[in-house]
Amino acid sequence: MILLFSSIAIGTVLIIYLTLSVLDKSPGNEKTERISNIIQKGARSFLFQEYTVFFPIVIVLALLFTFTTGYKQALSFIIGSVFSVLAGFFGMMIATKSNARTAWGATKGVGEALDIAFSGGAVMGLTVSVLGLLGLSIVYLTFGLQAVSYYSLGASFVALFARVGGGIYTKAADVGADIVGKVESNLPEDDPRNPAVIADNVGDNVGDVAGMGADLYESYVGSIFSGIALGYILFGDKGILNTLYIVGFGLIASILAIILVKVLSKMNTEPALALRSGTIASSVVFLIFSLAYAIIEKNLNLFWVVLIGNIVGVAIGLITEWYTSGKKVEKLAHSAMMGPANVIISGTALGMESTAVITIIIAVGTLLAYKIAGLYGIAMAGVGMLATLAMNLSVDAYGPIADNAGGVAEMSGLDKSVRAITDKLDALGNTTAAMGKGFAIGSAALTAIALFANFGSTAHVQEINLQDPKMFIGALIGAMLTFFFSALTMNAVGDAANDMVEEIRRQIKEIPGILSGTSEPDYQSCIKIATKGALKRMVLPAILAILAPIILMVGLGVQAVAGLLIGSTVTGVALAIFMANSGGAWDNAKKYVEEGHLGGKGSFTHKATVVGDTVGDPYKDTAGPSLNILIKLMAITSIVFYSIVGRWL
Amino acid sequence: MILLFSSIAIGTVLIIYLTLSVLDKSPGNEKTERISNIIQKGARSFLFQEYTVFFPIVIVLALLFTFTTGYKQALSFIIGSVFSVLAGFFGMMIATKSNARTAWGATKGVGEALDIAFSGGAVMGLTVSVLGLLGLSIVYLTFGLQAVSYYSLGASFVALFARVGGGIYTKAADVGADIVGKVESNLPEDDPRNPAVIADNVGDNVGDVAGMGADLYESYVGSIFSGIALGYILFGDKGILNTLYIVGFGLIASILAIILVKVLSKMNTEPALALRSGTIASSVVFLIFSLAYAIIEKNLNLFWVVLIGNIVGVAIGLITEWYTSGKKVEKLAHSAMMGPANVIISGTALGMESTAVITIIIAVGTLLAYKIAGLYGIAMAGVGMLATLAMNLSVDAYGPIADNAGGVAEMSGLDKSVRAITDKLDALGNTTAAMGKGFAIGSAALTAIALFANFGSTAHVQEINLQDPKMFIGALIGAMLTFFFSALTMNAVGDAANDMVEEIRRQIKEIPGILSGTSEPDYQSCIKIATKGALKRMVLPAILAILAPIILMVGLGVQAVAGLLIGSTVTGVALAIFMANSGGAWDNAKKYVEEGHLGGKGSFTHKATVVGDTVGDPYKDTAGPSLNILIKLMAITSIVFYSIVGRWL
Repeated sequence: MILLFSSIAIGTVLIIYLTLSVLDKSPGNEKTERISNIIQKGARSFLFQEYTVFFPIVIVLALLFTFTTGYKQALSFIIGSVFSVLAGFFGMMIATKSNARTAWGATKGVGEALDIAFSGGAVMGLTVSVLGLLGLSIVYLTFGLQAVSYYSLGASFVALFARVGGGIYTKAADVGADIVGKVESNLPEDDPRNPAVIADNVGDNVGDVAGMGADLYESYVGSIFSGIALGYILFGDKGILNTLYIVGFGLIASILAIILVKVLSKMNTEPALALRSGTIASSVVFLIFSLAYAIIEKNLNLFWVVLIGNIVGVAIGLITEWYTSGKKVEKLAHSAMMGPANVIISGTALGMESTAVITIIIAVGTLLAYKIAGLYGIAMAGVGMLATLAMNLSVDAYGPIADNAGGVAEMSGLDKSVRAITDKLDALGNTTAAMGKGFAIGSAALTAIALFANFGSTAHVQEINLQDPKMFIGALIGAMLTFFFSALTMNAVGDAANDMVEEIRRQIKEIPGILSGTSEPDYQSCIKIATKGALKRMVLPAILAILAPIILMVGLGVQAVAGLLIGSTVTGVALAIFMANSGGAWDNAKKYVEEGHLGGKGSFTHKATVVGDTVGDPYKDTAGPSLNILIKLMAITSIVFYSIVGRWL
Repeated sequence: MILLFSSIAIGTVLIIYLTLSVLDKSPGNEKTERISNIIQKGARSFLFQEYTVFFPIVIVLALLFTFTTGYKQALSFIIGSVFSVLAGFFGMMIATKSNARTAWGATKGVGEALDIAFSGGAVMGLTVSVLGLLGLSIVYLTFGLQAVSYYSLGASFVALFARVGGGIYTKAADVGADIVGKVESNLPEDDPRNPAVIADNVGDNVGDVAGMGADLYESYVGSIFSGIALGYILFGDKGILNTLYIVGFGLIASILAIILVKVLSKMNTEPALALRSGTIASSVVFLIFSLAYAIIEKNLNLFWVVLIGNIVGVAIGLITEWYTSGKKVEKLAHSAMMGPANVIISGTALGMESTAVITIIIAVGTLLAYKIAGLYGIAMAGVGMLATLAMNLSVDAYGPIADNAGGVAEMSGLDKSVRAITDKLDALGNTTAAMGKGFAIGSAALTAIALFANFGSTAHVQEINLQDPKMFIGALIGAMLTFFFSALTMNAVGDAANDMVEEIRRQIKEIPGILSGTSEPDYQSCIKIATKGALKRMVLPAILAILAPIILMVGLGVQAVAGLLIGSTVTGVALAIFMANSGGAWDNAKKYVEEGHLGGKGSFTHKATVVGDTVGDPYKDTAGPSLNILIKLMAITSIVFYSIVGRWL
């Protein structure tokens, strides 16, 4: 516990230091500051409205818990929800403060820009870890172990709203801006004459920063919960302690790595080298700490499973990169020469093909972890994968900041050399983000399997009777729900993007001088449309995830719920991998052509790759990542709901 | 047994009569006869080459069975394979004989054309049923019950090759012909100046007729096998007898319905009315027979589960129609106004959404059937759904004949009124085919669940231990395999289509006068390319389906195989529904625009819907239907392989 609290304390100090150091930088000239302010206001306003949509539901659920299981569980649920909100909100605030500063920093050099952008990202990464651990400690020490599942439920519940809502917002703005701006009016990316350009930049913040923050907060908390819950069942207090030590090592290793990157960027090291050094250092330091602890505790198995988790995460990341860059993407771009239909067919097949190796890696990792340390081993492999989240997320969150900085630079007419620097930083972020996605998918699979085992223990389902088809029926429904859920989120993006397209077309038609740049478009109305579209359409998917296990448990019993979790997990994992990699490959195929290959920008091939990229947007940034949360939320809902109604079933 | 044999005998007589009556009709003038001959030769040549690819594998497997379980099993396996081949081959031969005759018949009137096309389809429908039952009777009476699973394995094994090989062929030719012919050179459908036009028509026969015949032969045999196997386990010989009676009633009802359609078409009844009367009559007569039998046997539950199967099949068919026509398709066509990316996103979401209602129907049907008559009830619901296959398949197979007749009419320059009649018959076939797809998906799900229960009994896996993740690992791999398998088949279509596009472009460039119609293109080289492409690429997917359960059983044991079957079934069902309905909706959205809506042919919207249709082609005609076979083939392989190696596990 001392280790845990000191790592939390050091992390908090570092967050404050980094925040101050970012705010200390100049936000640039009047123009960059103004644009940054509009983005920030739009993002903040969206988040506040988002909260008013789901907080009433949180309160209702909390009241329900108060009257059924007690106020401790209700408070834990609220803490999980509120901390998740705080993690996303705080990370996003600092990200929106960092964009103009990064752009301005880029006028001084790449080292300065990297320093600011990475500091902004690191605030996010550290906040998610520190809040996750702090909340967990408070709940565990105050209310005891049985309240932790409610804390985890709160985190998952908010995460799904944040991911789905943010995902719809960002892609509706992105797709809308692309269709009218780029394709119809031939405006370049981030051109201030495009009415949806600010909404697009707001979207990066609410989707890629706040949404991702809540998402990874959920993954982090979920994996730790499954670790301590299974640890306690199998080894008592020692199981909990071991989990917390591992998590603490990860946070300390991340803190050291973040400082390393800061130092390297001050020394004007090549950005790619600085970031890679940090990522590798965090893993190495973490593994050394874990090994030392395992030797001292004479529990080497603990180290092995943590190592397996780390290797699985890295391996998935590498495979993801293999499928979304290099030769695979070149081949995909070549298929675009035959037209949009071929690039869609080839990209779909590419994503589906990529499920094979990744699933086998997950399967082998799961099996090895189980052979070494039983179900607890599987859970701890998940914890090992996410322990250095603070560092990995810092790199992840730095990407959208660099992306936004480019937008600010473009819109405020800064020198082209500035945009070149931010583009370079952005591209780097994309490569490292592939690794992050690998960790997200891998940890979701391992955590879901561990949560499933947890549900089995909680609900006393040790065995599934194969002569009774209830499990199979549940599994059919679980598999279907992942498709249905994806349909809902993709339709939401499509509908909201249509509204956006109509609004942009209206403005270009009704406000003369927009395209010539003599009058300013109405940015606010586009922001409002994206906000309204996302809020209206995020509720149904989230409700579905909560209600499905409840309805099935009441209607068909726990065997059907076990089936539901099996079906949704295995299908959700495959579907999420497919969507992430098809989307990533299409995105990069477009970029490959834009670099001047196969005819370059504006060619027939380029237009075909733009179609692929547009289809991939909701795949990789809305439906795909939401699936990772969905499968865990259903598992935790099942565990919590059984603890409420189990005695009557 | 007397009922069964008399129905087989009557069916055989009717097949002979229908065949003679088709051959008796005039194949038209020299031109129609010549084209029909080229198509027939191409189709026959493909099938023979296909046989040379998979028959060696059949022989090797049969030898393996001889030395492990005995010659009886080996012979049963060969009978299953050979009869499946015969069903597809004979059906296709008569279909290729019918096309020119239908075109020529259309010069005399719609009644005559319907009569010929339907007779050709009915030969196919009856052949599949009669051969299925005949083979089953031979194997069961000669070698006993334990050999029937090998018979079923043979049917499934050949079906996968036929579906995948035929599916690749037909879509490679179709996509290739469309891309260069329609889009680049602005040739109409079935224009004789298109070098791939004959390959396209050959594809309809080897894919939609021979492939579908082998597919449904497999479904029919698989459902009956699961019925008699579970029936024997639960009720002894009586369970087998009940199953055979139900199947016999279905065949007799189909025979009566086919005769009814023939009579109605001779009376020049409206084609839609004639076909619908036949379909309804077959169901009604079948249910009356079943009810009477159930009352006599004092086993009303048998009737209820058969009724449930029928209702589930019809309900899925209606939902399929709802999602692939009318308002849903109009909305999809509207989304195409925003461009190809939007129509792809909307169509994908539409297909994914459609999984919800269909899965719930399957789940409710399964649950009810189980409540009424246990696992045997689930199997018998599947049998009830497919009992009237002879009639349903007659309508299904009539569609491609009418389609081909249109092609022959176009290529041989018959009067436009002829094409109008065949188009009408073709459109009618599409609507009724939606119903057929519903039966295929529904019966695949029910049969797979029944086969899974069967595997549980065979391998003595009564329960799955949730504290051991092997089942979960198997399920992850099963889910992944359905995606990987789809990737393989879609890539196969893409690659083969690319070869085709290059060949067509080469011909248009190198042979002057093709486009002006003064010199004939080299049809044969296009046929060869499609043949080679399909044969080369059909082996890996099929091998995968056989090896996966074997590797998992040897490597991880029966719990993992149980997981494999759960994961592949639930994901495969969802993926198959998604692909079938997205593909169907895109196809009809294109047709909707071609009817003159939203700008009509050649408009921006039309081009976007063509992209949707092209993407949908491998979805709905290659990957989607193959998944239905895949999940059953893996289940039967598991059952058979356990019977060989189980004693050592």
